[in-house]
Amino acid sequence: MAAGTSEMLRALPKGDALVAAQLAGIMAAKRTSELIPLCHPLPLTHVNVHLNVADGAVEIETSAETTAQTGVEMEALVAATVAALTVYDMAKAVDKGMVIGGVELVEKTKDTV
Amino acid sequence: MAAGTSEMLRALPKGDALVAAQLAGIMAAKRTSELIPLCHPLPLTHVNVHLNVADGAVEIETSAETTAQTGVEMEALVAATVAALTVYDMAKAVDKGMVIGGVELVEKTKDTV
Amino acid sequence: MAAGTSEMLRALPKGDALVAAQLAGIMAAKRTSELIPLCHPLPLTHVNVHLNVADGAVEIETSAETTAQTGVEMEALVAATVAALTVYDMAKAVDKGMVIGGVELVEKTKDTV
Amino acid sequence: MAAGTSEMLRALPKGDALVAAQLAGIMAAKRTSELIPLCHPLPLTHVNVHLNVADGAVEIETSAETTAQTGVEMEALVAATVAALTVYDMAKAVDKGMVIGGVELVEKTKDTV
Amino acid sequence: MAAGTSEMLRALPKGDALVAAQLAGIMAAKRTSELIPLCHPLPLTHVNVHLNVADGAVEIETSAETTAQTGVEMEALVAATVAALTVYDMAKAVDKGMVIGGVELVEKTKDTV
Amino acid sequence: MAAGTSEMLRALPKGDALVAAQLAGIMAAKRTSELIPLCHPLPLTHVNVHLNVADGAVEIETSAETTAQTGVEMEALVAATVAALTVYDMAKAVDKGMVIGGVELVEKTKDTV
Repeated sequence: MAAGTSEMLRALPKGDALVAAQLAGIMAAKRTSELIPLCHPLPLTHVNVHLNVADGAVEIETSAETTAQTGVEMEALVAATVAALTVYDMAKAVDKGMVIGGVELVEKTKDTV
Repeated sequence: MAAGTSEMLRALPKGDALVAAQLAGIMAAKRTSELIPLCHPLPLTHVNVHLNVADGAVEIETSAETTAQTGVEMEALVAATVAALTVYDMAKAVDKGMVIGGVELVEKTKDTV
Repeated sequence: MAAGTSEMLRALPKGDALVAAQLAGIMAAKRTSELIPLCHPLPLTHVNVHLNVADGAVEIETSAETTAQTGVEMEALVAATVAALTVYDMAKAVDKGMVIGGVELVEKTKDTV
Repeated sequence: MAAGTSEMLRALPKGDALVAAQLAGIMAAKRTSELIPLCHPLPLTHVNVHLNVADGAVEIETSAETTAQTGVEMEALVAATVAALTVYDMAKAVDKGMVIGGVELVEKTKDTV
Repeated sequence: MAAGTSEMLRALPKGDALVAAQLAGIMAAKRTSELIPLCHPLPLTHVNVHLNVADGAVEIETSAETTAQTGVEMEALVAATVAALTVYDMAKAVDKGMVIGGVELVEKTKDTV
Repeated sequence: MAAGTSEMLRALPKGDALVAAQLAGIMAAKRTSELIPLCHPLPLTHVNVHLNVADGAVEIETSAETTAQTGVEMEALVAATVAALTVYDMAKAVDKGMVIGGVELVEKTKDTV
């Protein structure tokens, strides 16, 4: 996004983009199995969405945890993309040229209790 | 994605990723206002999701139309990202290194009837 | 269903199956576009779900109206099937052999105002 | 349905009815507790939707599994009916006389681990 | 509500407000984690919604149970408020002055098995 | 709520209760027809949720607008109650004695264009 946009994300005409994006990401993670056809519904025990504002960019880092045997990377990726789309929606009136990129899995771990 | 992955998208262990992604994208577009906090619910008259398989990549092009006065770029972007996440989910058992990138608005038009 | 089942639909262990089925059918009709992948979201102006108890059967008649140009037969059919499934769910503790059959479109009309 | 309809289910004007129906059935199973008022939300571990095209008919067989103590027949029945409704929606432009019938529970088992 | 309203809640122009409110409350409880941003999705094992008609009032008592470690008071409170809103919606054509009040947690217990 | 609670609503362990409540109220208003059985789905053109912190209380004022012929008081009331429940959920770790009260319709107007 433009550098000017990243400076005003907390005070856009539509409101605070960072708080809205964080909540939207968390809420979307809970609905992952409704959005992705072959995703199992999982008992999420934790979802975290963190937004870092850089110069002309927002870096979004998300994590998800479950007690189920299956991986929860899709929940974290859904949280990240919906958070990014929410930033886009909040800021699109002031910046027409934003791009969402680099959505990827950073780490996946399994506790061996 | 790996070149080998893009060659087997129609015959993955989980099924045909392209068809699943297309339907998931269309269905997600209809739920945009549930996912993005400040998006208005819009009467969508058309949603199109097209996936092009390239060498080591899938290019996803989406469009959305409404009779409402408001823009529908969020619906098209939601369709694109959920389609991409569905490809990711279908192929993640065979490819751990996929990245979703370059989600952006290509064009927005308004009919002046 | 068994004749004995149809006689006790208003007083099952789980409650009144007819009222639950009517409300479930109406509520499901409103979510048709979420369930059927290529259904447009339509502005429903009226949904009616009527259940007639016969001897060993429940006849369900539904109707739906919209101001949109598109047909609303899917909304009426979704209302009918979810109402039937709700009767099934409410009565399944007392009758294991119920069958849902004959779901069909009876009439489709268009007002030419 | 008409014999001619069953021959063209993979190449209808709206697309491939069998793939759409399979995915719609799976996705609907995950939302059973939202549709049927007194159904408990269950942790589904497996949903299967299989469509067999016969001459002038589609036979739909579904199954569902859970780790919960409660039965999951409603999830399988919801998958079957929404899959059938999706076939209906995809094919209704070419066939006005389709009927959905014979929705019933074939088998219910409980593992005694 | 007016005393006259509480006398006709079972036979309003829109139908039986008490049955509709009971079912709406139960269904809403199952969607608590979709409505309240930071609520975990919980495996509900029991939801109860009871409506008592008094003179010029309806008293709504709800309860919810889960096997999860987390409390389920939000599910019970969502059930109570949506049940109250449904009574309001069913009766608003005959009574413009209804007020919903006194939504509170009565008791929260934890089994120490 | 306790006076001490109302002073810390912007900095609770779970986060900023006022922002979360505002967004939750807006998002819930868009889902009114899913929650209240006989509510029509309406094209909302505007939803406003405003929270005023007083001494030991939060006053929530909401409004909703539609272009449809039907009233939108239910959407405003759903927004208000879900916003209140969200404040409750965010603050319940620090205050066990909160009560939600006085949910009522203040004004309903119709433009005569």
